[in-house]
Amino acid sequence: MTTVSDRQRTRPAARPSTRADGDQPTVDVPGLQTLMLGRWAALRRRSREIGADPRFAKVEGASMADARERVIGQLKLLVEEAEVLRAFPERLGGSDDAGGNIAGFEELLVADPSLQIKAGVQWGLFGAAILHLGTPEQHDRLLPGAMSIDVPGAFAMTETGHGSDVASIATTATYDEATEEFVLHTPFRAAWKDYLGNAAQHGTAAVVFAQLVTHGVNHGVHAFYTTIRETLPDGSTGAFVAGVGGEDDGLKGGLNGIDNGRLHFDHVRVPRENLLARYGQVAPDGTYTSPIESPGRRFFTMLGSLVQGRVSLDGAAGVASKIALATAVRYGNERRQFSSATGSDETVLLDYGEHQRRLLPLVAQAYAGHFAHDRLLDLFHAVFSGETDTPEAREDLETMAAALKPISTWRALETLQTAREACGGQGFLTENRLVSLRADLDVYVTFEGDNTVLLQLVGKRLLADYAAGFKGIDGVGMARFVVERAADSVLYRTPLSRVAQAIQDRGEVRRSAGHLREEQAQRELLTDRVDTMVADLAAALRPSAKLPREEAAALFNAHQHELIEAARAHADLVQWEAFSKALGDVDDPGTQLVLTWVRDLFGLSVIEKNLAWYLIHGRLSGQRARTVSSYIDRLVARLRPYAQDLVDGFGYGPEHIRATIASGVEKRRQDEAREARRVARASGEEPVSEKSLAKKTL
Amino acid sequence: MTTVSDRQRTRPAARPSTRADGDQPTVDVPGLQTLMLGRWAALRRRSREIGADPRFAKVEGASMADARERVIGQLKLLVEEAEVLRAFPERLGGSDDAGGNIAGFEELLVADPSLQIKAGVQWGLFGAAILHLGTPEQHDRLLPGAMSIDVPGAFAMTETGHGSDVASIATTATYDEATEEFVLHTPFRAAWKDYLGNAAQHGTAAVVFAQLVTHGVNHGVHAFYTTIRETLPDGSTGAFVAGVGGEDDGLKGGLNGIDNGRLHFDHVRVPRENLLARYGQVAPDGTYTSPIESPGRRFFTMLGSLVQGRVSLDGAAGVASKIALATAVRYGNERRQFSSATGSDETVLLDYGEHQRRLLPLVAQAYAGHFAHDRLLDLFHAVFSGETDTPEAREDLETMAAALKPISTWRALETLQTAREACGGQGFLTENRLVSLRADLDVYVTFEGDNTVLLQLVGKRLLADYAAGFKGIDGVGMARFVVERAADSVLYRTPLSRVAQAIQDRGEVRRSAGHLREEQAQRELLTDRVDTMVADLAAALRPSAKLPREEAAALFNAHQHELIEAARAHADLVQWEAFSKALGDVDDPGTQLVLTWVRDLFGLSVIEKNLAWYLIHGRLSGQRARTVSSYIDRLVARLRPYAQDLVDGFGYGPEHIRATIASGVEKRRQDEAREARRVARASGEEPVSEKSLAKKTL
Repeated sequence: MTTVSDRQRTRPAARPSTRADGDQPTVDVPGLQTLMLGRWAALRRRSREIGADPRFAKVEGASMADARERVIGQLKLLVEEAEVLRAFPERLGGSDDAGGNIAGFEELLVADPSLQIKAGVQWGLFGAAILHLGTPEQHDRLLPGAMSIDVPGAFAMTETGHGSDVASIATTATYDEATEEFVLHTPFRAAWKDYLGNAAQHGTAAVVFAQLVTHGVNHGVHAFYTTIRETLPDGSTGAFVAGVGGEDDGLKGGLNGIDNGRLHFDHVRVPRENLLARYGQVAPDGTYTSPIESPGRRFFTMLGSLVQGRVSLDGAAGVASKIALATAVRYGNERRQFSSATGSDETVLLDYGEHQRRLLPLVAQAYAGHFAHDRLLDLFHAVFSGETDTPEAREDLETMAAALKPISTWRALETLQTAREACGGQGFLTENRLVSLRADLDVYVTFEGDNTVLLQLVGKRLLADYAAGFKGIDGVGMARFVVERAADSVLYRTPLSRVAQAIQDRGEVRRSAGHLREEQAQRELLTDRVDTMVADLAAALRPSAKLPREEAAALFNAHQHELIEAARAHADLVQWEAFSKALGDVDDPGTQLVLTWVRDLFGLSVIEKNLAWYLIHGRLSGQRARTVSSYIDRLVARLRPYAQDLVDGFGYGPEHIRATIASGVEKRRQDEAREARRVARASGEEPVSEKSLAKKTL
Repeated sequence: MTTVSDRQRTRPAARPSTRADGDQPTVDVPGLQTLMLGRWAALRRRSREIGADPRFAKVEGASMADARERVIGQLKLLVEEAEVLRAFPERLGGSDDAGGNIAGFEELLVADPSLQIKAGVQWGLFGAAILHLGTPEQHDRLLPGAMSIDVPGAFAMTETGHGSDVASIATTATYDEATEEFVLHTPFRAAWKDYLGNAAQHGTAAVVFAQLVTHGVNHGVHAFYTTIRETLPDGSTGAFVAGVGGEDDGLKGGLNGIDNGRLHFDHVRVPRENLLARYGQVAPDGTYTSPIESPGRRFFTMLGSLVQGRVSLDGAAGVASKIALATAVRYGNERRQFSSATGSDETVLLDYGEHQRRLLPLVAQAYAGHFAHDRLLDLFHAVFSGETDTPEAREDLETMAAALKPISTWRALETLQTAREACGGQGFLTENRLVSLRADLDVYVTFEGDNTVLLQLVGKRLLADYAAGFKGIDGVGMARFVVERAADSVLYRTPLSRVAQAIQDRGEVRRSAGHLREEQAQRELLTDRVDTMVADLAAALRPSAKLPREEAAALFNAHQHELIEAARAHADLVQWEAFSKALGDVDDPGTQLVLTWVRDLFGLSVIEKNLAWYLIHGRLSGQRARTVSSYIDRLVARLRPYAQDLVDGFGYGPEHIRATIASGVEKRRQDEAREARRVARASGEEPVSEKSLAKKTL
């Protein structure tokens, strides 16, 4: 598919900013936009219409109070005008459409990330907890208020003292047979619920996670529905009910349209029937029963049912990245600075080698992240629609979400920042939106699962899969730490290789890394790295089986960094495989060729970042390693004429991007300046430069 | 100095969080704090007192209008209470103390970056332009108002259409002999002055940079002092004067205490004596004269005199990084999450391998940046005090500032972000300040010289120095693009190697990379990389001498990325050399040993980042390259017990850090929780866990 031989050693000259026709392929931009809209195109389109509607747009510079007021009002409008209830049961007015719901939800970021996340709190956490942890009777009773937002609710899981380690939360719900109630209680300050959207101001109810205690036995974390504030006669939110207290989290780095806050409970009575009882039930006499016998498995099943938050953040991070790139590439194609070599005009920023090197690999990342997210959404829909709701599919889903959410949210921050810097001072002005989006997206890397913790979980699954291939002492030795420390996990014995295999259709794996531009060579390099890192880790951890507990833990800890790096490598591979598979769905040959270059740029950029690993492990010779960077240089130059097409392919118009500099204003200013200079020259009154006079004198 | 043999292959167990005495060195923290205060200790201390004074602290969440009002008020207080006028002449109430002025100025960031930068606009740009570009008569006439802030002023250089390329600004100042005035004029929208502090609201005067035209000749960019707004009888700022207009830049990603705005001029008359005339004068009859004959050299001299902005940002970025690390390390030493292997308590975050790997190399970076900044400040003071004001020293200074400002400001953003993520949800709360500092610091990477543009300038100087070593065609070929394109530069033929040599006292350079823990081996690896990259670049660009202009430009552009990478490598080397030199100033042996490990961690981290380069170029074998990462692992584990000492060594107390989580609150919450659990256990009424029951049943 590619035309440049690996043997070509000289670098190409910088490409002109407009695409030469003739031999060059062309991108079918409308076709690409359709491809990118994917499976739930209509829902994405509708959600983008909302995103373009000024009533839903973020008001920059609003006070925290005004921003919160605006967003809660927008949520009410969403119920009327958008399709935000699709995930809920048809019999209650929803559509039983898990995948479509997420597809629409993640596009809400176009309007305002606060709006998106506040909607996520109400329907994706509070409502979804009732849906996934409650019984049908509880759905009928509790969902309508959550859906209509007559009952704004908080999802009260995290405590000040325990975030990632949910199993250790300290809030208790102790059953009282005498009254058939649970007594919800916060024992100390560290057990206050914290960072909860809807808690500081709007919430009248909450799903509170607490240790369920009955008959003197702690059955672990369960969810309880409880009222936290009065609903006033006009439907607005009143004061805390007796026994409930709280605090405002105050200003945050972003998302200030959301009223995050803290809650605490002083022996608050919760009726027995408000224990969300799908996975654990207490009879009137206090007898505990559960359809899942193992407490550990029960815990992970409950938490796993809430995976949609991570799935949707993977998609939302992609939306933000695309908006940022559409802004920076448009500006980079218009903004000029410093005289060009020909002297006729100044050079367009995107014609500078470094500018291309900074932006184009990010465009490739955005495409890779997009196609991987599409696969994640397919898997999510298969599980939650019931199409393929097996334990294995759930495990695959949870692992894939834990792998993709970290890399896409970190890359969104990288992309937003690089785009902002690529736009210079303009990038720092709020009117160009990049700084605003970055501030709002910041917390995506630590909420709904801290990125580092999630990657560690993925790493442990990789190890567990590897260990599963070895019976006997070795497997046991490794599995020990994987399983024992899995209490931090919402994942559970997930065969990681399945995730990659499901997307890749691997074919035969050759041991030699061929030409880097060949798909199979890239696959081989990326796959081999994951496999080798995991095998090396397993070997390094093998002695732990024979070590005292503390020393074994120290050994594991000494390898935590490699474990996380292995998970990152796996996530890169998943994205690359998804991109490669998506190329098969592209009908237009020109588009397919250009996207293949984009895929190559993504793959080679990942390899370049880890080049030292490939060299140290003898996977690439020094000579071949040099060609990685030079091939990237060639790809970047080859893709430069398509940069605008590629960001147009994301499908966001100026009504979604809403950055002044992405409106053509820069080009208009330059046209005016160019015309003014032309007139001045024509007038014959233009001053001569001292420098040119000096040359003449010499 | 180090005690761990390179042959030791097993990894050490995680260190306890408190330092074991006995064989371990101890850090003399007060002594370290004194060392870090450096040459202008008293001025730094005074400035930190200001930073700890609530009257100067940033009010988070204030509206843009309130923030601006507060900061202009604080500026007036600074005049009375701080030593913000030290750079100005003694005869006008200053101290002629260039270095001390910057030392005090950069510490103002502790109070509020908006306050710092607004002070920088008033005294470091507006006032400094009068000081450095004006004559003594102009000093007497114009400085007092600038110093007292009776005349708030804008520094009107950047235009919407031209930022990095100052030489191409389009505003004109055309001399009119009839009235002995300049006519200041903005020809089109792209020539509006933009992003100027004090322009949107407070400024009554401006130093405006414009093309000076007299007798039909354009003598290039000069600075003109002009009134832009009326001063009302009460001393406050009134409306624009006739011919001047402007616009508010509005909200920004940070620094909203500064009223950035735009200005434009419609044939505004400026008296002849308000051309700042140190480097260029126009006689009443319109005759232009200058002490510097070459227009290019004159331009670079004028701009070079304003280098102090970059110098001070290098220091300010360091202050922000230190505050962030002090916060994250303190929290990482108190916050616990997930049960430890011994089961007795949860694990402190900083005992996790990955947490150490994320934070400790940043601590090492902060130290390296600190010592390099001290050297930069010495050089700055030597030049501007007149001690060593030679063209060579100025060139060295400008180059060193252009090298250090980019890496320290980018690292500040990296440090602030990593610290914020290391503090999880707490890091996102404004009360913990990390997000606020990050938002304010964001623009540091593109203002006062875009980082990428600055590094390119440094790269060109490296090439020019290299070329200067070769006479004849080769040198000419390279120098052609270096010099021709130097119009974007405030630097001028700077022998880069002098900068490194001045700090290093190199000694003999051996060709073999010895043990990585040896200072000389690190020096060799870092130095060799710079030298080799520059030589490779020179070779690659050699053909440009024989190519047509456009093709030669394309060749240069294709290597822009490597040019910038070479500059980055040079900056790393400068920091490493400064750190190594500073080790000689440490008297206490324990402190010196620990700081040597910190220096090693910095050096090895730089090498690790560029490991692929060392492998490809045969500088490290695969086997030795592996030891880089494992030696970093060992250094990180060895330094872990000193993490708190090292951030305490920065010398910032809680009154400067002002993050709730750095106040001990986390430890107090945990102590309370631990005691509550102890009481519960002692009561005998603690519920048993279902899990432990299940185990007993089996």
